[in-house]
Amino acid sequence: MAVIDSKAVMSSVELGELATGQRLTAPVYTFEGHDKQAASVYIQANVHGAEVQGNAVIYQLMRLLENYTIAGDIHCVPLANPLGINQKSGEFTLGRFDPITGINWNREYFDHSPVVADIATWYQAHQQLTNNELFDAFRGQLLTSCQTRLAQPWGVSTGHRLALTLQSMAHKADIVLDLHTGPKSAKHLYCPEYDMADARWFSIPYALVIPNEFGGAMDEAAFYPWWQLQQYCASIGRNFNVPVSAFTLELASQERIDLVDAKQDALGILAYLSHRGVIKEHVAPKVMSRWGCYLADYKKLHAPRAGMVEYCAAVGKPLAAGQNLVNLLRLDQYGSEYALTAVSLPCDCVPILHFASASVHQGTELYKVMTNVFSL
Amino acid sequence: MAVIDSKAVMSSVELGELATGQRLTAPVYTFEGHDKQAASVYIQANVHGAEVQGNAVIYQLMRLLENYTIAGDIHCVPLANPLGINQKSGEFTLGRFDPITGINWNREYFDHSPVVADIATWYQAHQQLTNNELFDAFRGQLLTSCQTRLAQPWGVSTGHRLALTLQSMAHKADIVLDLHTGPKSAKHLYCPEYDMADARWFSIPYALVIPNEFGGAMDEAAFYPWWQLQQYCASIGRNFNVPVSAFTLELASQERIDLVDAKQDALGILAYLSHRGVIKEHVAPKVMSRWGCYLADYKKLHAPRAGMVEYCAAVGKPLAAGQNLVNLLRLDQYGSEYALTAVSLPCDCVPILHFASASVHQGTELYKVMTNVFSL
Amino acid sequence: MAVIDSKAVMSSVELGELATGQRLTAPVYTFEGHDKQAASVYIQANVHGAEVQGNAVIYQLMRLLENYTIAGDIHCVPLANPLGINQKSGEFTLGRFDPITGINWNREYFDHSPVVADIATWYQAHQQLTNNELFDAFRGQLLTSCQTRLAQPWGVSTGHRLALTLQSMAHKADIVLDLHTGPKSAKHLYCPEYDMADARWFSIPYALVIPNEFGGAMDEAAFYPWWQLQQYCASIGRNFNVPVSAFTLELASQERIDLVDAKQDALGILAYLSHRGVIKEHVAPKVMSRWGCYLADYKKLHAPRAGMVEYCAAVGKPLAAGQNLVNLLRLDQYGSEYALTAVSLPCDCVPILHFASASVHQGTELYKVMTNVFSL
Amino acid sequence: MAVIDSKAVMSSVELGELATGQRLTAPVYTFEGHDKQAASVYIQANVHGAEVQGNAVIYQLMRLLENYTIAGDIHCVPLANPLGINQKSGEFTLGRFDPITGINWNREYFDHSPVVADIATWYQAHQQLTNNELFDAFRGQLLTSCQTRLAQPWGVSTGHRLALTLQSMAHKADIVLDLHTGPKSAKHLYCPEYDMADARWFSIPYALVIPNEFGGAMDEAAFYPWWQLQQYCASIGRNFNVPVSAFTLELASQERIDLVDAKQDALGILAYLSHRGVIKEHVAPKVMSRWGCYLADYKKLHAPRAGMVEYCAAVGKPLAAGQNLVNLLRLDQYGSEYALTAVSLPCDCVPILHFASASVHQGTELYKVMTNVFSL
Repeated sequence: MAVIDSKAVMSSVELGELATGQRLTAPVYTFEGHDKQAASVYIQANVHGAEVQGNAVIYQLMRLLENYTIAGDIHCVPLANPLGINQKSGEFTLGRFDPITGINWNREYFDHSPVVADIATWYQAHQQLTNNELFDAFRGQLLTSCQTRLAQPWGVSTGHRLALTLQSMAHKADIVLDLHTGPKSAKHLYCPEYDMADARWFSIPYALVIPNEFGGAMDEAAFYPWWQLQQYCASIGRNFNVPVSAFTLELASQERIDLVDAKQDALGILAYLSHRGVIKEHVAPKVMSRWGCYLADYKKLHAPRAGMVEYCAAVGKPLAAGQNLVNLLRLDQYGSEYALTAVSLPCDCVPILHFASASVHQGTELYKVMTNVFSL
Repeated sequence: MAVIDSKAVMSSVELGELATGQRLTAPVYTFEGHDKQAASVYIQANVHGAEVQGNAVIYQLMRLLENYTIAGDIHCVPLANPLGINQKSGEFTLGRFDPITGINWNREYFDHSPVVADIATWYQAHQQLTNNELFDAFRGQLLTSCQTRLAQPWGVSTGHRLALTLQSMAHKADIVLDLHTGPKSAKHLYCPEYDMADARWFSIPYALVIPNEFGGAMDEAAFYPWWQLQQYCASIGRNFNVPVSAFTLELASQERIDLVDAKQDALGILAYLSHRGVIKEHVAPKVMSRWGCYLADYKKLHAPRAGMVEYCAAVGKPLAAGQNLVNLLRLDQYGSEYALTAVSLPCDCVPILHFASASVHQGTELYKVMTNVFSL
Repeated sequence: MAVIDSKAVMSSVELGELATGQRLTAPVYTFEGHDKQAASVYIQANVHGAEVQGNAVIYQLMRLLENYTIAGDIHCVPLANPLGINQKSGEFTLGRFDPITGINWNREYFDHSPVVADIATWYQAHQQLTNNELFDAFRGQLLTSCQTRLAQPWGVSTGHRLALTLQSMAHKADIVLDLHTGPKSAKHLYCPEYDMADARWFSIPYALVIPNEFGGAMDEAAFYPWWQLQQYCASIGRNFNVPVSAFTLELASQERIDLVDAKQDALGILAYLSHRGVIKEHVAPKVMSRWGCYLADYKKLHAPRAGMVEYCAAVGKPLAAGQNLVNLLRLDQYGSEYALTAVSLPCDCVPILHFASASVHQGTELYKVMTNVFSL
Repeated sequence: MAVIDSKAVMSSVELGELATGQRLTAPVYTFEGHDKQAASVYIQANVHGAEVQGNAVIYQLMRLLENYTIAGDIHCVPLANPLGINQKSGEFTLGRFDPITGINWNREYFDHSPVVADIATWYQAHQQLTNNELFDAFRGQLLTSCQTRLAQPWGVSTGHRLALTLQSMAHKADIVLDLHTGPKSAKHLYCPEYDMADARWFSIPYALVIPNEFGGAMDEAAFYPWWQLQQYCASIGRNFNVPVSAFTLELASQERIDLVDAKQDALGILAYLSHRGVIKEHVAPKVMSRWGCYLADYKKLHAPRAGMVEYCAAVGKPLAAGQNLVNLLRLDQYGSEYALTAVSLPCDCVPILHFASASVHQGTELYKVMTNVFSL
């Protein structure tokens, strides 16, 4: 552990071992807060190998933080999935899933539901605690569950080891930010329904409001047990806010580093941290329009036919019903009506992201679009 | 559709389109039965690209069938996943999952549960039917659900199209056999609990007894709705056997064609078809010991550390507690105690399959072993 | 062979077989010329799987050709490498090299040098022929060599079969255009030194002037034997122009279909065909600046260190010595001088293309740049 | 650098950097010899990622060496290509070529020919030296060339950096052994023609006698400049033996660790080292038949058609003309004569290796066979 010429203390976290014996590690930068009551923060980036822009955002955020008064501890873990980042296939990074198992690196986080299922029993044993004590005990329980899983005698998979190790760091924080990108994408974020109001602090125009459920991703792994605890307590008349916040930020397109744009997103994160009291100074959010969409209204369009694809609809810009999303070009059908066909939707939408390649098999996910968009 | 010099009628099934516009098809060979009351059969092979031996088994089975009296219709679909089979990566076939999404090709089958969930309502509308009429109606319902899903306006993924198309053929049959292999593997089969007795007809020594549940695989997709129907009817006092049988046969190792061995497995299938009255002649099952194991006792051992792997335990042979499964060789640690370490288990087991590569990252699944094995 | 609602006659060419038995084919569109003295043309696209824009250019060219008077035969082969085009890896097309052997699809063309090496003997047997007869005989020799290679008793590799089949079509033409793209690239073309003057007809600003040599690519395979024949004849006092022209056009970036831009390039090709008398009408080349660079001055910059990469220099725009090509971001080195470093060159250049991914291992080719650029 | 509980001193060599910044290193084990006149040795393994057995041979060799008297320095570099070894694709190791460029890792070694081309000039400046001095000067020249290449201002590719770094270690030794395997393979070795007699020391039955030429592989890179020096000096009347020996050992099949078999090959290497005076004790070679074959007689059979493949011919066992090499199974052709076809050769041969997968595209290299085999 080396102190560097910065407020941050650098260390590293062990995430596994490669076949040659090489240790997989990620750097951890810690900004220590002066106020033990302030919320603490965990930020990671690049769990999917091609989604690199989060590293640039962490870089710009850390540079900004050097000039602010830090109240709550902030832990930054860029390059969080070295196996995924270093896995190239041709000129691209093949880092969306474990190359051996095919499992999406962001669907491997540990599900506490079985433990939390019996929350009544757990609560009975802890009911005499104050809120803060209760939260500490619950946090301890989550950490113990992760460690027990990691230590199980039959071993854990490569992806579970990575996820459990990152998750253990995340569980220690009150605020968890997981920095991703889409393939070719507008900026958007995932936000649990109970925390919808806070989406407006980030420099991000589109918010996907997700149900308070667990689906395997980091954000869900971080907030869902706490939401279950809060719901249970409310059901027996003990009321408090969900003590943990977790967001996934999708910072435009993969395979792209843009330092100027990264600074905008770092400022958005700073505004949110300011709002939450993690830094003492006031940082105003960017003035911009922000829209929301419920996950059930977030639609995937699959290629109705194979072919070469011209992506016509710009991401992040509203598109009226009937306007072209893509042109499908079929050079095996020149001279017929199928040589060039347009694909559109029967409803208004905002295209949020599209597939990275310009040729598709039938069934490839062409676009994800928001429908029934509302102002946040 | 061309009649060939065989009892079988050849046709083909459309499974999708590749980016160039090339149609993905698989051959379908139909042996028409003379007895419309006899059970009908659907057999497919090679849904995972590297698992080719099922094709050889279908080849040998079809040659055998030329000399038997066919009562029930038999549909054989070898080379069932052309995209997976043709996808090479280096010298190997990368056909276990969709190369774009990472999704296992054998976890994409359609889950009828939401439909079947409301089985009481469905039953009420059909309760006046005889058993055979009821089964026909239910089969029609399953087929309609698949077609509705295939036709949904936002399209379906490449893997769902493949699965739904194969599944639609399978739903028309009373017996479904899905031919797979393990990586480096002993022969074993997956068998739903209610059908355990019938595992003894195949030329396969090990049977995994799986719960009567749906997990995304073809066998489960085929039998599970019928098991739900049977359970519901039993709960209201109408009793019949589960009308559909479905097994997944794991025919030893992937990337291997062995025609002599394929004939053994074809004879095993023939014995089962004879038992079920699909062919008129009597074919005795192979005399051999057969063992079973419940899925909960089927364990995965993950590599506790990375390294080069010597696989010491032969698949299909019982191994006593404490005996070596693998030696882990670490050339970065020569001169230390970690240079060569043995990995064993604290319990007796039968190793069923092991990983295909001789070098592993930490967490790679080294072996799958049966524990608490019992005689069938 | 089907006549379509177009001047073009469609057929297809067989290029191999996939493991499932599926035939690999590409469409061939032929515009028959009315003047047997006019130069004939062979155009292919998409030999590298991700380089799809050439298909759009062929599409636009064919649409334009419907309205012109065609003197020389024109053969268009889009989607020329179906195996490469359909080979996905993650969200991208892994079609630059054979996935089994790693061999670049555009380095497999047949080298006639050994045959042509003994050109003196060949010429002696044909010296009495007129130029046109001589060229016909030589063309026949090239085609025979390709067919002999294809028919050799030990077989040919997948890549050689593809290349020899395409090359056999190309050898029948007087003009060969091979449509490619770079990774992230400005438009440029490869032009043999003897044909430098003709680069100015295309809608392409940058021309790489390559030596009159064979390196395995289609353009070289097409022109080099003819250049050798011309040189030999000149050395003994028989003078004529090199009878065959061959260019590789790099139509901006891979994984991109842009129909409007494709029309610009189709018009450039049309201008060249007009200049060469393949169509009767006059089509003027686009008015634009065009620059050349000798291959020896075309430089690759390899990543001096690993890291995340911000590509700062726009392709196709002159860059002064010392200006930033890339920023290298190293999140494992935050707090040190290595966290963010700029990479520049000591000489003026025009960046032509850069790597597709934003993270690189040490040694990855970051940029290709032209130096010592001159006006064409 | 840590002294371990062994005669060997462990260090490591830097081979590059991955995108995350992680350094690529390989372990280096040095057994220091007591006799500075004795020949020195460089042994590396696993330059191709799936070819792991060489690591086990180095392990067994090092264990044996602990009990011998070491005269010449011995440097062992197992796990020589960490990027290749750690690159998985599905269940297999995709380590035969750079995943980005497709270039075979064993074709990237530096060609000294351009330097050595002007050997007359170089020799004139060094002709006054004794043989040993001459060899030292020449070795120095080779090392300087490698270092100059590594330091060139435009950088070097990932593969060249790896190769040049390994090659620089190899150039310091008198004996170079590069440990590889085939896909599914009998043991064989590559041996330059001038060193054919020494093939009989290894525990390897088949020797491929290669021309004294450079083709990009490590063995050629190590011996070829010395052979050129020796030839030049002989041409002007100064005679000496080629001072450097280099062999590539192909230790059976890839993706296989077998410690017992590894000891056999370690003993073979020990016998050769004993013969060369690297160790003081006498170690006799294994008594076995050994055969040779000239590279021109080493033939590749490409799949004449696509299909499922049953490999019938055992590697390492002579096969008479007309006997089956493979059966090609075509399930899309059941009922026709093409459903099952045998492939044989018109000449006697010894099959040495075959393709790793049991399904092939047309043109895939099915077998490599030795013809015109002679007793060594």
